[in-house]
Amino acid sequence: MTKEVYLDYASTTPVDPRVLEKMLPYFTSEYGNTESRHQKGKKAKIALDQACEKIAKILNCRASELTFCGNATEANNLAIFGLAPASPSHFITTKIEHSSVIRPFEELQRRGHKVTWLNVDHEGFINLEELENAITPETKLVSIIYANNEIGTIQDIEKIAEICKKHQVLFHTDACQIAGSESLDVTDIDLMTLNGSKIYGPKGVGLLYCRREVKLSPQILGGGHQNGLRSGTLNVPGIVGFAEALEITHNNPLKPDLRDKLLTELLKLPRTKLNGPMKNRLSNNINIQFEGIDGTELLLHLDQAGIYCSSGSTCVSGSEQGSHVLLAIGLTTKEVNSSIRITLGKPTTEEEIDYALSALKTLTSKLWQRS
Amino acid sequence: MTKEVYLDYASTTPVDPRVLEKMLPYFTSEYGNTESRHQKGKKAKIALDQACEKIAKILNCRASELTFCGNATEANNLAIFGLAPASPSHFITTKIEHSSVIRPFEELQRRGHKVTWLNVDHEGFINLEELENAITPETKLVSIIYANNEIGTIQDIEKIAEICKKHQVLFHTDACQIAGSESLDVTDIDLMTLNGSKIYGPKGVGLLYCRREVKLSPQILGGGHQNGLRSGTLNVPGIVGFAEALEITHNNPLKPDLRDKLLTELLKLPRTKLNGPMKNRLSNNINIQFEGIDGTELLLHLDQAGIYCSSGSTCVSGSEQGSHVLLAIGLTTKEVNSSIRITLGKPTTEEEIDYALSALKTLTSKLWQRS
Repeated sequence: MTKEVYLDYASTTPVDPRVLEKMLPYFTSEYGNTESRHQKGKKAKIALDQACEKIAKILNCRASELTFCGNATEANNLAIFGLAPASPSHFITTKIEHSSVIRPFEELQRRGHKVTWLNVDHEGFINLEELENAITPETKLVSIIYANNEIGTIQDIEKIAEICKKHQVLFHTDACQIAGSESLDVTDIDLMTLNGSKIYGPKGVGLLYCRREVKLSPQILGGGHQNGLRSGTLNVPGIVGFAEALEITHNNPLKPDLRDKLLTELLKLPRTKLNGPMKNRLSNNINIQFEGIDGTELLLHLDQAGIYCSSGSTCVSGSEQGSHVLLAIGLTTKEVNSSIRITLGKPTTEEEIDYALSALKTLTSKLWQRS
Repeated sequence: MTKEVYLDYASTTPVDPRVLEKMLPYFTSEYGNTESRHQKGKKAKIALDQACEKIAKILNCRASELTFCGNATEANNLAIFGLAPASPSHFITTKIEHSSVIRPFEELQRRGHKVTWLNVDHEGFINLEELENAITPETKLVSIIYANNEIGTIQDIEKIAEICKKHQVLFHTDACQIAGSESLDVTDIDLMTLNGSKIYGPKGVGLLYCRREVKLSPQILGGGHQNGLRSGTLNVPGIVGFAEALEITHNNPLKPDLRDKLLTELLKLPRTKLNGPMKNRLSNNINIQFEGIDGTELLLHLDQAGIYCSSGSTCVSGSEQGSHVLLAIGLTTKEVNSSIRITLGKPTTEEEIDYALSALKTLTSKLWQRS
């Protein structure tokens, strides 16, 4: 039987068994609706409140500043559309955002708003001066991804927040990739998105933190749940799981050891090149070029060997275009096409890394010989 | 220890253990992202496809006509906002819709659209002639709740669909309450909403069926999942559970026996009156007035006895207004305030009904004596 080595944790994570354990009672036994006034409802409400308190403690915010969504895509949409005024305004973002930030901003452009798309350098970092210069009195929001999902570049969020604060512009960050890596403290952040399915929590739960002074317009209307910001019966098991997953992930940062081992070995091969930075990079992320090799073909061979990696973002459904992130850091189409993303996770073992490394060496050697 | 008798199944249902069983592997073991091209992703995609096929068979539609949302509220919002053109148009709905239909239509009115709110008779049925007369060449959509969540009135959906078809107007129905009661065949329906948490499936999963000829605008933008209609990583465990729950519920209709027993006994008490119809009523629903008794107080006493019922819709978060449904069928505020909703479910036993009946008799007798 073929060994299975999952190395696509940036795409989605398994649910931590401890998280699932916490969720279970809320499916079949404590299944009440949080809005019901009877004891069954109150128990669900208590579970919801405890989950919120747990998250609020980690984010250093108020429980009332949290809005649960169906996923991070919805949370990003809520942040952006929820802040867009009826009259044309100005927004700032980057060229390396997730599609759930890019598409809403493109829609705002269609509606007559102006959007500045900040450049990034060859490692994926924005230029702080360019950001500051882009801010105008009409700027409504700056939205910058905390750590890039493809190349792992971690922006200097503290400085970005400082600039936004100085110019009194709202700052949102898509922080889906950073739990267990960077601080989640939102003291200087106005809006932040998190995602259950990236932190060993359940799929189907996204979170938007929004500072209480910020006036956000709801995008989904109904019974007025969650302070009217997002109506719909609350997914109690999912939210309980999200909180547990966030706590575990936050308290147990992933060490870069195994990633470093794999990366070091891969960079020893001739004609390999790391995409993105060496420093200020997510500790689980490798995005690497194998010059002269077709990345898609390499991924196929790896798949056959039971090793699951990806080419860039998984979240661009059915897209055949090259990665906009790799293009933004200056790669040629050829370089983009010879790149693959390897992302490690909590369950990753040294044995798995050795197996993957050996397979990668064999496969690339064959493919290079053929080319 | 107090006995617990949950009689609020219209608010939310427990997850059927068979449903949970089906979901479990997708949390911790088959946790792939449906968009990933490796085997782990493909397995998740197969599970998704199988779930879609299962649902499509029950609805008698194509799998590609299904869009999964974070809950039914989002699905109703998608149906309504997704069909609203930029230029002012006309919509028809009723006065007894769920808040997740009412609020979007109110928002459309604010945006300059015209909305006709159809009246209902004293049992909650719309007048088909009134519907037909309301249709104009500008009418974009008719949205009518299949079975009312408060009083259980089941509309003549076949006739409504016929009228809409005749006038070439799109027809949407919020069918969250009808699985296991009425046909789910969408042959003559253009859009239909279902809800996992009302059919012994998981919370956090709603479904919108939309006929493929209907052009719907997505409300949540991103990676282009689900034919671009609703972006965001798919909640595979939730969707697998939804499909299983729908199948089980659809194939095992709830018999009205226990409801009838309870209702008959309650109507024998003096000063009680059923709200809504005797015929064409959901087989699990009782909505009843206890003249001279404060419903909220009765609910509180029932709660203390471990019996969980509700006053009207649970989904109007924190609202203190009287039920708009009971007002629409002509009840006075006094009558509204003396009404409670009792909804039975699959797990309801005769023993539970006997216990609830005995408690209701004792409590109402005491409250009547006091008044």
